[in-house]
Amino acid sequence: MKPPSQAVERIVKAALEEDAPQGDLTSQALLSADAVISAELVAREDGVLCGEDVFAAAMKLTGDVSASFAVHDGERFAAGAALASVNGPACAVLQAERVALNFVQRLSGIATMTAKFVEAAAGTKARIVDTRKTTPGLRILERYAVRCGGGGNHRFSLSDAVLVKDNHLAVLAASGVTLEDALRAVRVQIPHTVAIEVEVDRLDQIDAVLAAGADAILLDNFSLDDLRSGVLQVAGRALVEASGGVTLERVHEIAATGVDLISVGALTHGVKSLDLGLDMRNL
Amino acid sequence: MKPPSQAVERIVKAALEEDAPQGDLTSQALLSADAVISAELVAREDGVLCGEDVFAAAMKLTGDVSASFAVHDGERFAAGAALASVNGPACAVLQAERVALNFVQRLSGIATMTAKFVEAAAGTKARIVDTRKTTPGLRILERYAVRCGGGGNHRFSLSDAVLVKDNHLAVLAASGVTLEDALRAVRVQIPHTVAIEVEVDRLDQIDAVLAAGADAILLDNFSLDDLRSGVLQVAGRALVEASGGVTLERVHEIAATGVDLISVGALTHGVKSLDLGLDMRNL
Amino acid sequence: MKPPSQAVERIVKAALEEDAPQGDLTSQALLSADAVISAELVAREDGVLCGEDVFAAAMKLTGDVSASFAVHDGERFAAGAALASVNGPACAVLQAERVALNFVQRLSGIATMTAKFVEAAAGTKARIVDTRKTTPGLRILERYAVRCGGGGNHRFSLSDAVLVKDNHLAVLAASGVTLEDALRAVRVQIPHTVAIEVEVDRLDQIDAVLAAGADAILLDNFSLDDLRSGVLQVAGRALVEASGGVTLERVHEIAATGVDLISVGALTHGVKSLDLGLDMRNL
Amino acid sequence: MKPPSQAVERIVKAALEEDAPQGDLTSQALLSADAVISAELVAREDGVLCGEDVFAAAMKLTGDVSASFAVHDGERFAAGAALASVNGPACAVLQAERVALNFVQRLSGIATMTAKFVEAAAGTKARIVDTRKTTPGLRILERYAVRCGGGGNHRFSLSDAVLVKDNHLAVLAASGVTLEDALRAVRVQIPHTVAIEVEVDRLDQIDAVLAAGADAILLDNFSLDDLRSGVLQVAGRALVEASGGVTLERVHEIAATGVDLISVGALTHGVKSLDLGLDMRNL
Amino acid sequence: MKPPSQAVERIVKAALEEDAPQGDLTSQALLSADAVISAELVAREDGVLCGEDVFAAAMKLTGDVSASFAVHDGERFAAGAALASVNGPACAVLQAERVALNFVQRLSGIATMTAKFVEAAAGTKARIVDTRKTTPGLRILERYAVRCGGGGNHRFSLSDAVLVKDNHLAVLAASGVTLEDALRAVRVQIPHTVAIEVEVDRLDQIDAVLAAGADAILLDNFSLDDLRSGVLQVAGRALVEASGGVTLERVHEIAATGVDLISVGALTHGVKSLDLGLDMRNL
Amino acid sequence: MKPPSQAVERIVKAALEEDAPQGDLTSQALLSADAVISAELVAREDGVLCGEDVFAAAMKLTGDVSASFAVHDGERFAAGAALASVNGPACAVLQAERVALNFVQRLSGIATMTAKFVEAAAGTKARIVDTRKTTPGLRILERYAVRCGGGGNHRFSLSDAVLVKDNHLAVLAASGVTLEDALRAVRVQIPHTVAIEVEVDRLDQIDAVLAAGADAILLDNFSLDDLRSGVLQVAGRALVEASGGVTLERVHEIAATGVDLISVGALTHGVKSLDLGLDMRNL
Repeated sequence: MKPPSQAVERIVKAALEEDAPQGDLTSQALLSADAVISAELVAREDGVLCGEDVFAAAMKLTGDVSASFAVHDGERFAAGAALASVNGPACAVLQAERVALNFVQRLSGIATMTAKFVEAAAGTKARIVDTRKTTPGLRILERYAVRCGGGGNHRFSLSDAVLVKDNHLAVLAASGVTLEDALRAVRVQIPHTVAIEVEVDRLDQIDAVLAAGADAILLDNFSLDDLRSGVLQVAGRALVEASGGVTLERVHEIAATGVDLISVGALTHGVKSLDLGLDMRNL
Repeated sequence: MKPPSQAVERIVKAALEEDAPQGDLTSQALLSADAVISAELVAREDGVLCGEDVFAAAMKLTGDVSASFAVHDGERFAAGAALASVNGPACAVLQAERVALNFVQRLSGIATMTAKFVEAAAGTKARIVDTRKTTPGLRILERYAVRCGGGGNHRFSLSDAVLVKDNHLAVLAASGVTLEDALRAVRVQIPHTVAIEVEVDRLDQIDAVLAAGADAILLDNFSLDDLRSGVLQVAGRALVEASGGVTLERVHEIAATGVDLISVGALTHGVKSLDLGLDMRNL
Repeated sequence: MKPPSQAVERIVKAALEEDAPQGDLTSQALLSADAVISAELVAREDGVLCGEDVFAAAMKLTGDVSASFAVHDGERFAAGAALASVNGPACAVLQAERVALNFVQRLSGIATMTAKFVEAAAGTKARIVDTRKTTPGLRILERYAVRCGGGGNHRFSLSDAVLVKDNHLAVLAASGVTLEDALRAVRVQIPHTVAIEVEVDRLDQIDAVLAAGADAILLDNFSLDDLRSGVLQVAGRALVEASGGVTLERVHEIAATGVDLISVGALTHGVKSLDLGLDMRNL
Repeated sequence: MKPPSQAVERIVKAALEEDAPQGDLTSQALLSADAVISAELVAREDGVLCGEDVFAAAMKLTGDVSASFAVHDGERFAAGAALASVNGPACAVLQAERVALNFVQRLSGIATMTAKFVEAAAGTKARIVDTRKTTPGLRILERYAVRCGGGGNHRFSLSDAVLVKDNHLAVLAASGVTLEDALRAVRVQIPHTVAIEVEVDRLDQIDAVLAAGADAILLDNFSLDDLRSGVLQVAGRALVEASGGVTLERVHEIAATGVDLISVGALTHGVKSLDLGLDMRNL
Repeated sequence: MKPPSQAVERIVKAALEEDAPQGDLTSQALLSADAVISAELVAREDGVLCGEDVFAAAMKLTGDVSASFAVHDGERFAAGAALASVNGPACAVLQAERVALNFVQRLSGIATMTAKFVEAAAGTKARIVDTRKTTPGLRILERYAVRCGGGGNHRFSLSDAVLVKDNHLAVLAASGVTLEDALRAVRVQIPHTVAIEVEVDRLDQIDAVLAAGADAILLDNFSLDDLRSGVLQVAGRALVEASGGVTLERVHEIAATGVDLISVGALTHGVKSLDLGLDMRNL
Repeated sequence: MKPPSQAVERIVKAALEEDAPQGDLTSQALLSADAVISAELVAREDGVLCGEDVFAAAMKLTGDVSASFAVHDGERFAAGAALASVNGPACAVLQAERVALNFVQRLSGIATMTAKFVEAAAGTKARIVDTRKTTPGLRILERYAVRCGGGGNHRFSLSDAVLVKDNHLAVLAASGVTLEDALRAVRVQIPHTVAIEVEVDRLDQIDAVLAAGADAILLDNFSLDDLRSGVLQVAGRALVEASGGVTLERVHEIAATGVDLISVGALTHGVKSLDLGLDMRNL
């Protein structure tokens, strides 16, 4: 399920414009417009690829550089692997290089990190999902990267699901409205295709949330014991999501508590770009 | 030297649109439009602040929420510090929260990381500078974050300086043009306000670069010994920049070689967002 | 749950630009810039209001005309009622008039039509909802108009819910994939907050859809008898939506079959703008 | 005289973006990317076609679907007629379907309605023209639809003709300026290629308007007798336009009064989308 | 008849973005953000002012600089006159200076040049009008400048009037269509508010053009004698416009031939910016 | 070093939209869509060409008109020369004509004027450079035109070089800061690739500027004697630029004083469009 090409093109064009608003002074002033080069996108560490389309779009938009991928989005590769080859005017390849790498390194970094979380949770039924802690402007790409890494997506934005958080509950409480009444009012204002999820901080909140008819319950910053208790208490009447302080070290034991979903801000929030490089050939 | 408010507003508007294209289903369906809340931006770890304007813009654009900062861009703070307070309609604060945090956490992460590199290089003349390895669409903000952390900026884009890299040299060599001839041709094509920098991989390339009249020489992936030799060889006839594999652990010894500049991709490339949170008050 | 003001302003600005790209030749050439007028938005037929914000934005953006509403979005009014009064420079009021009316007449037409369907379905549990048959570019406003009329919204776009239609089923069948296998594959690709609905043309398709785990079933163009049978067959295991040929005349008997939702393309598809006019005062 | 392709593409792109900002969840998650389908655009009622280019653009922009029209813009067709055939990737066809239909149904609805008015006025010299009561953002397309139906266009916007309405006259009167003086002042402020038209409510206003040199006179809400008198009084010295309450039933007798133009808000204002459908083939 | 403020703001914002995409390095790095200055817009040569709004918008948009004009659009001034005073943050004034001057100098240059042509044609009935030879992107402002100089406007664009030129006539002739038949077909395709003008190169073409019912005839590159003959031949049955090689020296004798309009490409085509400067005060 | 095609296309599209927002009434209503024509871009005076790409883009974007240039950007031509030939649908050629000419005439005017200045300065070491006195929105094209004429570019915008002007010095002086201290502070805020230039009005300011470490000194409105003295005083320690009142008559003697650069606002500020025409063939 790739991002629409219209979105990819819009984002890549903006990035190229940012990186060379008046063209590439160095290449254009230094090199012959006729010079043609070949290059390879090479992995300098192991990983999972994401970014074929953005990489290719950057190359194509600076001057009809062809890009051909040997490894595809969602596939694993080892350090040293040749992921793609490009061929075209030297000026175009060198102008596109940094932008193309910035995208593919970041997205592959996310895919690779996601794959590690997914792998760590293997053998459980828990699905690793992203959060809204994405880079402003790049959410559509970063969510795709999470999928390439084997993870799932949480809601795309504030407009497509209801997630009642602690602060909402506090405002509700201050106004003397019960959650049950509040959710009943919400349900008629939203499409029937939209789920309602409620975040809780304590086990004793769960019953009220179930009574109010939530489709999912988010157990935020629960201990492993409390997660297990929560799962038992919910007993399949709603999806159970765990969040808060989820690290690679801890994710397996969280997953093993029986939760359905684990949302991990770190997938997109503090991810290291993967080390990929563009090596010129035949010069 | 803050980013222009026109750019800040454009970027924040796009982020808010991305995060709530049809509004915030949860807050709007759940809460009274009259509910007002106060909240504090609180540090959960030590750091250097960057993002006052974007944070305030996000709050203001979703519904005239006032934001007042106790700590300012470029200032250090300790875990637990209250950085800013906001006050306004609950629906607006809660809608803006994630976008505002995404920006200020990322930018403060960059400023904080930069400050660590700057600190590590203290006592030397080396200046820590950024690279073009920035997030597509956010370069103007991320460069500002580097300045907030005490670092300097390298060129903004391909359009405002000449940086001849190894691949350019290879293409030149393949076409039988000497660097000296090439740079002479470049100089008359570019504004006199634009510097020319040349990247070298080996000490024996330096003399030709100096002879060609470069304003700066980039020593890429040099050993410490070679950096020291390079500085001596250049002898003040050009600025000397070191790059490649610069870590917090290694930056002091690199700086101590006498280079003028150290460019660090990691400032913006793989930076962890700083842990900041918005804590509601008085509910 | 109003549309975001950012969206309202964007749409109204574009409409004003379309209607007067170089200004209003008539008013500007004919009238003194100092002339001030008052006017009233008057109903020429009964209806339900929708469009306060777009009307006010059009007035404000052409020249700080104040608009004050006596009747508010979602409220009913009778022919002859004064809905709002405006006051400001004659040139601005007259330039904004047509655009402001075009919006408020169309949206009130939708709200009024929706209210009629809702009223006709009163006493049943069926909720009247819209479809994607909206005016290109105005979906966010038209869905709001449906809510103002007491209706509900279906999914906003192809990106926020799964609705498997007859053509999808046909393609699936042609490729030899069972619905159950297909939906299982879909479920892991979409957020857990997204519902899956499947359209069926015949009663005998229902069991397979339920077995495949759909959250809702759309009974398309069913007879009243078949709708009743369908509701019984589903027996609460999924939401039941009726669609196809829903008219004001037929909506009550459809609603009385026990379906949960009735989607009505006609709410937005062929709606007559409501007859509202701007009458000048005190001239 | 087709709308410029640049405008068509801009409008269709925005509509596709509105309808699938992150792609089509259903088709992409459900169907194989390789599945190819054929479909026909079929008329479910009689009509006049308008929208070839927008339909084709929607199909092309979602994924290189070819669209070939058997009936062309401005041509009549009967219920059951196959208007066009499309062929391409199933995912692309199904994603484009609703947007393509929304456009072609609305535009054909306008063309068809216009054709009915034109037909009703046949045998007179009156030309049926549109008004500014168009859908915000779609005026360029809807005016084209009116032309496809055999009608003519009134001014495009406030910027390209002078139409002095009752409210203008009232403001003028309040400031003690005669129409003659006012129009003399207007004439030197506008291009000589721009016509001046004045709206009147009563026969006794006509002489002053003619004296003031108007190119056209709009008789608003006149009885048939008054229209006839008005035409006689003007006696060819200006074009005569009738407007106000023009219905299909009344249009012939209005046309028979001898007016040159009849403007009909209903052409675009409250038009029912024509019933067209996309039927899949060979599945 | 000022350009719409929406258009002014859009154009000025784009110009400021072009001139300082990342802010004003010099002022921001050099000056205190608190420094405030006053300055005067001073005329260094005689002229007619145009550009109040764009000048003020540039000042306001860079940082709330107030601008107050002593001379207004369309008014004459002598060298040395103080046209406006500005007051605000030094950084904002100095950043806006060049953009504000670029606009007001160019527009005042056009207004001043136009005034000279208008003055030279004084005492005749000829009106001086502009052409489509305007600066791409600035047509709306440049046409306003022509009006400020006392001139009139020709059609705004290809979309709002019919002007049949020599090349159109040649294509028509090649296809064997008479002008009369062609214009009859045109008339029913265009709004009745749109005039038809036909360009001729020779006197013997005039009768056919009149017979075809043109509203205006453009006599292109005619000698003075032929202009006089043309005016006599047309005899008030159409407006007569002269064009081609109109200079300040020749304009009076052209005007004296009795033509109604003289279009002058040089008003906008090759105009010298007027010499205006921003002089700082009280430093 | 051509402007990026992305920028060219954006600018040309906007110009075409401005010139024919709803298409070309004349050509579309008058001519057969099938008519094809050939035309030549012909020089009516001597000059230097600039604008191949914008001309070709205008032709291509209105309807796949092919344009083939016999003379290329930067090449000289004589009056009467055929510069390019175009071939395509008559409607497209005639719609694109004015926009294409507006661009190529203006840009060739700049290139031609620049070439005259460059020629006048021949035999000296002085380089003729542009200023920021460009047309809002067209700077990227106009700077390219200057290069086509053999000139050089000054800084692109306020964001890519430091140029301390008299007003900056006055503000500094008023705040009691020395230039040396100020520039030291500036240097650490700007990229090392950015040059610092300081404008002086008198010879006695030069020593302080050199002491402060400026890379270039701008001698503004100096007499020839003072320019000579200034060059001697600087003695190669900085680049020397002359500006102010530079005319074609004076440029050689200014250049002969030994300055490195002469900036000429008149290159772009008040340039006459070159007389080029599009002559139809074979009709």
